[in-house]
Amino acid sequence: MDADRTRSASGWGYVGEGPSAGEVERAVGLLAARFPGADLSVEAPMAPPVLPAPRLTVPAALASFCTLEGDARRLHAVGRSSVDVLAARRGQVTAPDAVALPRSAAEVAAVLDWCADAGAACIPFGGGTSVVGGVNPPSGRPVVTLQTRAMGRVLEVDRVSRAARIQAGAVGPDLEAQLRPSGLSLRFYPQSFELSTLGGWIATRAAGHYATRLVHVDDLVESVTAVTPVGLWSSRRLPSSGAGPSPDRLLLGSEGTLGVITEAWVRLQDRPRFRAGATLRFADLAAAGAAVRGLVQGGAQPANCRVLDPLEAALNGVGDGTGAVLVLGFESASQPVEAEAEAALAACRAAGGTSAEGVVAGAPGGGSVGRPGEAEAWRRAFLRAPYLRDALLARGALAETFETVTTWDRLDELVAVVSATTTAALREVCGDGLVTCRLTHAYPDGAAPYFTVLAPARRGGEAAQWAQVKAAAAEAILSAGGSVTHHHAVGRDHRPWYDPSLPFALALAAAKRAVDPAGLLNPGVLID
Amino acid sequence: MDADRTRSASGWGYVGEGPSAGEVERAVGLLAARFPGADLSVEAPMAPPVLPAPRLTVPAALASFCTLEGDARRLHAVGRSSVDVLAARRGQVTAPDAVALPRSAAEVAAVLDWCADAGAACIPFGGGTSVVGGVNPPSGRPVVTLQTRAMGRVLEVDRVSRAARIQAGAVGPDLEAQLRPSGLSLRFYPQSFELSTLGGWIATRAAGHYATRLVHVDDLVESVTAVTPVGLWSSRRLPSSGAGPSPDRLLLGSEGTLGVITEAWVRLQDRPRFRAGATLRFADLAAAGAAVRGLVQGGAQPANCRVLDPLEAALNGVGDGTGAVLVLGFESASQPVEAEAEAALAACRAAGGTSAEGVVAGAPGGGSVGRPGEAEAWRRAFLRAPYLRDALLARGALAETFETVTTWDRLDELVAVVSATTTAALREVCGDGLVTCRLTHAYPDGAAPYFTVLAPARRGGEAAQWAQVKAAAAEAILSAGGSVTHHHAVGRDHRPWYDPSLPFALALAAAKRAVDPAGLLNPGVLID
Repeated sequence: MDADRTRSASGWGYVGEGPSAGEVERAVGLLAARFPGADLSVEAPMAPPVLPAPRLTVPAALASFCTLEGDARRLHAVGRSSVDVLAARRGQVTAPDAVALPRSAAEVAAVLDWCADAGAACIPFGGGTSVVGGVNPPSGRPVVTLQTRAMGRVLEVDRVSRAARIQAGAVGPDLEAQLRPSGLSLRFYPQSFELSTLGGWIATRAAGHYATRLVHVDDLVESVTAVTPVGLWSSRRLPSSGAGPSPDRLLLGSEGTLGVITEAWVRLQDRPRFRAGATLRFADLAAAGAAVRGLVQGGAQPANCRVLDPLEAALNGVGDGTGAVLVLGFESASQPVEAEAEAALAACRAAGGTSAEGVVAGAPGGGSVGRPGEAEAWRRAFLRAPYLRDALLARGALAETFETVTTWDRLDELVAVVSATTTAALREVCGDGLVTCRLTHAYPDGAAPYFTVLAPARRGGEAAQWAQVKAAAAEAILSAGGSVTHHHAVGRDHRPWYDPSLPFALALAAAKRAVDPAGLLNPGVLID
Repeated sequence: MDADRTRSASGWGYVGEGPSAGEVERAVGLLAARFPGADLSVEAPMAPPVLPAPRLTVPAALASFCTLEGDARRLHAVGRSSVDVLAARRGQVTAPDAVALPRSAAEVAAVLDWCADAGAACIPFGGGTSVVGGVNPPSGRPVVTLQTRAMGRVLEVDRVSRAARIQAGAVGPDLEAQLRPSGLSLRFYPQSFELSTLGGWIATRAAGHYATRLVHVDDLVESVTAVTPVGLWSSRRLPSSGAGPSPDRLLLGSEGTLGVITEAWVRLQDRPRFRAGATLRFADLAAAGAAVRGLVQGGAQPANCRVLDPLEAALNGVGDGTGAVLVLGFESASQPVEAEAEAALAACRAAGGTSAEGVVAGAPGGGSVGRPGEAEAWRRAFLRAPYLRDALLARGALAETFETVTTWDRLDELVAVVSATTTAALREVCGDGLVTCRLTHAYPDGAAPYFTVLAPARRGGEAAQWAQVKAAAAEAILSAGGSVTHHHAVGRDHRPWYDPSLPFALALAAAKRAVDPAGLLNPGVLID
């Protein structure tokens, strides 16, 4: 897959992908109408930056998979937050001194040994799609970025238990392509699916497209193997266990600070053959949220269950901006799901929703068949959103997202307070701004609101502007009882608001020192 | 509840509960037939032991909730494994020097301070039903056993999110009684339900009666609060999170070594009103297991899904010993489940099962109505099994259980090897013996086999005999790819076979030292 396409060094995804010029102009037109007077001219990217000479030399034994070459270093200089993308476009990046592409756990261990000898930091890097500064080199010491994608194979498939042993550097589409002959699928589709890796998902506790049930990758993991500076961290491959605190759950979310994840046994599923869904309109996000709460507390487990507030719906081309939209989808590998969808539709109608189209059912094996038209429009927009964001950034807009999760009792208040606080911060910092919200995942006891901000930015000042807005939003989220992040991870950007209780923070830091005594691994992320 | 009944100081549960004399004689008759020549005379319990003088004095400030009194110390001297029960009956126990019954987190902290000052170990103790030596005082230093049951209240119920904040010392029935006015239930029923506590469940990653889906208490926890020697360990109350490794998941399974759990927010459910189930016969355990695998991989989520091998079924009064028995039960709070049960029954028949009775459906709100007759017989036997075990121990039988979990690809081989190895060990050590197996929990990728052993023991030599048999069984389990435990925890008894990889073991030990620098908390459990 990588072979056919070129990764962008200064933007999301692959060069040449993303929305058409017409689609970009439509979005820019919306911005121009909403932010009259804003300068929306195109900012051309700069030439790639000339990098400082690397502070490292590659040991001869590692020469076959490590490089000091400029293009490789530039490709690994930043993640893909708005601030990252702007910095990359302007050539204002701190690149790693070297890039390693180990092909095995032994080669990963050799890279860690090299880092220890050279006093270098090591940054594990999968798809590089972090939007929280999770892969950006810190200053002050040499850095080796360890790119895992040379370890991208499905090593073993257990059809009886429906599980597979997969190397951590497997990228979404390539992982699924390798599983396809078995008829099984991991069915884990984060928004970064076409770029990100299994190891990255595990390291960041990523959440996939499932809106209910198997949301975080946590629930798909049977065991994890990681290379640490003191040896191989592995766990028994099990469906479940009651033997002590889970070793896997300590690696899940460790964001490269405890070890370099090299492979995992993960749970697979049969590929869905039956689909049915519906799209409903509600007065507002709170009304749609209440309907979703009723569904999931009643035991429904829709694969897709997204609530878009009126503005978010309109910006995504689903709805006219007068109401919130709920997109519901059910899937099964074994049996028709129309009845489930009909029951959910009826419950949502009873809760105040309206649906002109009703349930749209899919034929067995029908790919996107069975996804209602508006749901399909939303899905396309979802996958292309980061590309569109880049285009808007180039036109002088501040365009970014942040997310959280909270219990149902606090949800409406959180959404209201965070929206108001962030809008006020945008007005103060940028003069104007929009905040939209969707609910991306639903649990029996709560839901995950996801916010998008759009504002006219000051060219060159976006990072400082965003820092101010982000701080206001993060503090509002924490005060309202949300998590600092639901699935974007902590990285360096969320570190000020990542606030575990002191005993746990001490325990985590001590665990880190025990397995990484020299502090090589991703310094500055999660732990100071 | 405790007020009305007297806890047995040397056996399971409450004095006067358990099987009738007739039921015991029936079981003894089976033993006599199977183990001819065995001495099955009744061994009378000894007078309670005279304890050595306590090595501690209670500080004046703690006098209102700490005691050195002999009866309290004897009640907290052992857990409830077979070896524990035999030792207690014979007065061969090492009792703690003091028992604390703190009523608040502040009083828990005061107990830890006292232990630190006095050089004492502190053993958190809920229901005291550990079957793995999880609450037995180690020798060599003074011991304060911290009994949590004075913290037994439901503090807060959030009906909107369906969650509650509950103190750790709440015992099963009392916890449910307090939730009843809300119409909600934790619905967590381990075999020790009538005795054990929320805090104990969390500390040991207990598994409840649900055979699928919400198996371990892990999945019911929104947040946990614990008192550690360095302060209060708490987490944000959330449906889910992606912010760093989960603090809760490090406490889950920590078995009292990292802190004293004082309260938790837990997820509740509506009380089930609809039930339907079926009982099937299969040629053997493997055939029934294969049918269960088909069910759960097809998406079925039965509340009850127990497979009993032929002998286990016969000993529990369900079946004639010629085939394995599968007991299936479905439940719902919102809708009838006959259709689900019928679909499961059809699938199991297609997989080779037979059922004379077919689906038995329950009326809404019908308590045990809707549980098929054989399922109800099995359920009664399940809850009374530990009492019966005690009666058999008093008659000179070795009677004990152990359990594990593994993936489906290895299950049949594991059951065969572990059964054969354990049977051989019983024959070598005891001259004869029976090993039966059931599958207690089913996952899409595996299942949990639970073994029961019965053998003629040597009076006074049971502990040594069991140690030999247990070692053989544990080694067979690990070699065959199982976990050292699925839901009995590690304690002191499993410590020799609890084998995390070195980096994780280092991390866990370092985390322990960070929050318990003096090593007060449950020394010898999990970590050396």
